[in-house]
Amino acid sequence: MRNVYVAGIGMTRFAKQLDRGLKDLTAEAVTGALKDAGQSAAEVQAGYFGNAVAGSMTGQEMLAGQFGLRPLGIGEIPVFNVENACASASTAFHLAWLAVATGTHDVVLAVGAEKMTHPDKARSFAAIGGSVDVDTTPADLPAGRSFLMDMYAESALRYMEQTGATRADFARVVVKNQCNGQLNPLAQYGGELTVDQVLAAREIVWPFTLQMCSPISDGAAAALLVSDEARLPGNAAVAVLASIVRSAPADGSASVTTLAAKAAYEAAGLGPADMACVEVHDAAASAELVIYEQLGLAEPGGGADLIRSGQTRLGGSLPVTTSGGLLARGHPIGATGLAQIAEAVQQLRGTAGGRQVPGARVALTQNAGGWHGADNVASVIHIFGQATA
Amino acid sequence: MRNVYVAGIGMTRFAKQLDRGLKDLTAEAVTGALKDAGQSAAEVQAGYFGNAVAGSMTGQEMLAGQFGLRPLGIGEIPVFNVENACASASTAFHLAWLAVATGTHDVVLAVGAEKMTHPDKARSFAAIGGSVDVDTTPADLPAGRSFLMDMYAESALRYMEQTGATRADFARVVVKNQCNGQLNPLAQYGGELTVDQVLAAREIVWPFTLQMCSPISDGAAAALLVSDEARLPGNAAVAVLASIVRSAPADGSASVTTLAAKAAYEAAGLGPADMACVEVHDAAASAELVIYEQLGLAEPGGGADLIRSGQTRLGGSLPVTTSGGLLARGHPIGATGLAQIAEAVQQLRGTAGGRQVPGARVALTQNAGGWHGADNVASVIHIFGQATA
Repeated sequence: MRNVYVAGIGMTRFAKQLDRGLKDLTAEAVTGALKDAGQSAAEVQAGYFGNAVAGSMTGQEMLAGQFGLRPLGIGEIPVFNVENACASASTAFHLAWLAVATGTHDVVLAVGAEKMTHPDKARSFAAIGGSVDVDTTPADLPAGRSFLMDMYAESALRYMEQTGATRADFARVVVKNQCNGQLNPLAQYGGELTVDQVLAAREIVWPFTLQMCSPISDGAAAALLVSDEARLPGNAAVAVLASIVRSAPADGSASVTTLAAKAAYEAAGLGPADMACVEVHDAAASAELVIYEQLGLAEPGGGADLIRSGQTRLGGSLPVTTSGGLLARGHPIGATGLAQIAEAVQQLRGTAGGRQVPGARVALTQNAGGWHGADNVASVIHIFGQATA
Repeated sequence: MRNVYVAGIGMTRFAKQLDRGLKDLTAEAVTGALKDAGQSAAEVQAGYFGNAVAGSMTGQEMLAGQFGLRPLGIGEIPVFNVENACASASTAFHLAWLAVATGTHDVVLAVGAEKMTHPDKARSFAAIGGSVDVDTTPADLPAGRSFLMDMYAESALRYMEQTGATRADFARVVVKNQCNGQLNPLAQYGGELTVDQVLAAREIVWPFTLQMCSPISDGAAAALLVSDEARLPGNAAVAVLASIVRSAPADGSASVTTLAAKAAYEAAGLGPADMACVEVHDAAASAELVIYEQLGLAEPGGGADLIRSGQTRLGGSLPVTTSGGLLARGHPIGATGLAQIAEAVQQLRGTAGGRQVPGARVALTQNAGGWHGADNVASVIHIFGQATA
């Protein structure tokens, strides 16, 4: 495998943006990534486009990638529309990485874009419901209720029983991520909250209150990946040290994120202790604690201890979801993976502003998709490092 | 790039199968491909799953690949859900080919599956409408009318004006493909028709009558791709000589299929004259004539002459769509590309039964997706040859 670098990143604000369409969001992210890399649209040799629910939300069931890139003058090249539920963007990035790593192409674009807000909120929630096995779920979701969040809630209750984690621990995750979100100019939410305030907020589904659930967002993010040959002098490139996509075992015998993490650490020749910062798939606040354990950042059952210790806050020994995470930065599902990657790239470049982890040299991103039984269906992990000059 | 072989193919019947779901269709095709290859589910290292409209038709907007493969015991491995409108399956096959060709994996599964029939026909037609740019098309399609077929009809009228092709020539394509379809036990339709009968059938949209339009179908097809290392002795493998995916130029300056064909012939070191048989994307009867020219099987403007000559019939010098094509074999859109590949594999193995092209050594498949302006949005071309022992 050849060296692969992220030469540029671009990202829209993540927010409710009822007035913006998928193409508009795509154009901003892609134009930003090209400009950041100092490359032009004509240099792109292939495009991987992550999106999950455009069919449900916009009617663009097919070819969203081609129709999104064409107005930017990007045509002729192969464009692949990739879907992996909430892990669509990181999966698109993985395939783009593979194209460069294997020598198939030298300059490849990875995009994640999602339009989720709709005047009828029930439509947004129903779209998210399409990430579970439709054979095993009710056809009609209660209006205004996310079935996927119900599944995370069930899992959170089990986790509390098994580990002694409390709702206050989930609130601590929210406090941390909202605090980080206020330092991210592209984040949907952010602010100074207390554990009590989070616990006192409106209940969405027990044991979750409002801020413990990731919000409905619109947004896009993109990355330009290049080989050594295509790397421009002076470009602030970041190296991809590992890129792993895994699906849940058919028999449910292991956690898909645990499997993906093991493979990613092996590919990079690194372990949890080497990470300067980590972005996790905090679709619900409880998930962050579970993922601490799956990534080996905490011992089994030790997720609550880790959040209580303060080590995963900015300024702690291992800051997690410095971007604000899904909970505060927002979660336009097919774009989230690339927003995580954009955060890792900024941290390693030292350009994360008020969120900067001093001297960050290695960063990990973990993006998950779908739900089946008691686990995600897919997990995608990337490890990034500083590129040698 | 390493040698890549198709070690096994599997396919359901293509037909209106209201009682069957996406998983059931997927299971039959995948099980068939594994059995044909003599390999087990445990040996599969990655899966590429092509589907276009499950979100609209079944509610399974996301993760159809994982949920389709999991009941077969296929988990843990990376599974990629790939969408490229009517070219989804051949695009999935391309990425599977790339994974083997680049040495990423040795045994990879490519699947295309589509569930299109619904008690409410308007829903099927509306789903297909999602393959055009939704910004430029009316939000509400007239019930029971396929907007995409309207676009093919416009294109057909231009083609008639420019080349002198007639509706009788489109009917000749139908007569040929229906004749081939009756020899294919998995085809949706097939029979002995006359040009007059086809012209006298119900008009769908001028200049097309019923049989000039590809039907609504349910079906799945799969292929197992292997490297030299994973090829089993005695397996009737077929070699992949070229695998090309192209998108339409952003400025519409050239036909996407012409571009893809040029690249495919170059990759294989072969030309149109080397082909023993060809499967084309005859979504409408007129398209077959246009594609003759785009693939270089006929001179520019010579599509009608070629169908009139009888050379593309079984028994002619260059049989086209021996499977029956989209018109007769059927067109479950996300599965079609792999059905074309299954036909090419059977022809090269000499197992195509009554459709066999004697001594076939090289075959080409052309699969297209979507519509924008006056051209398809994507075109995917594969060239296959006999594998050396």
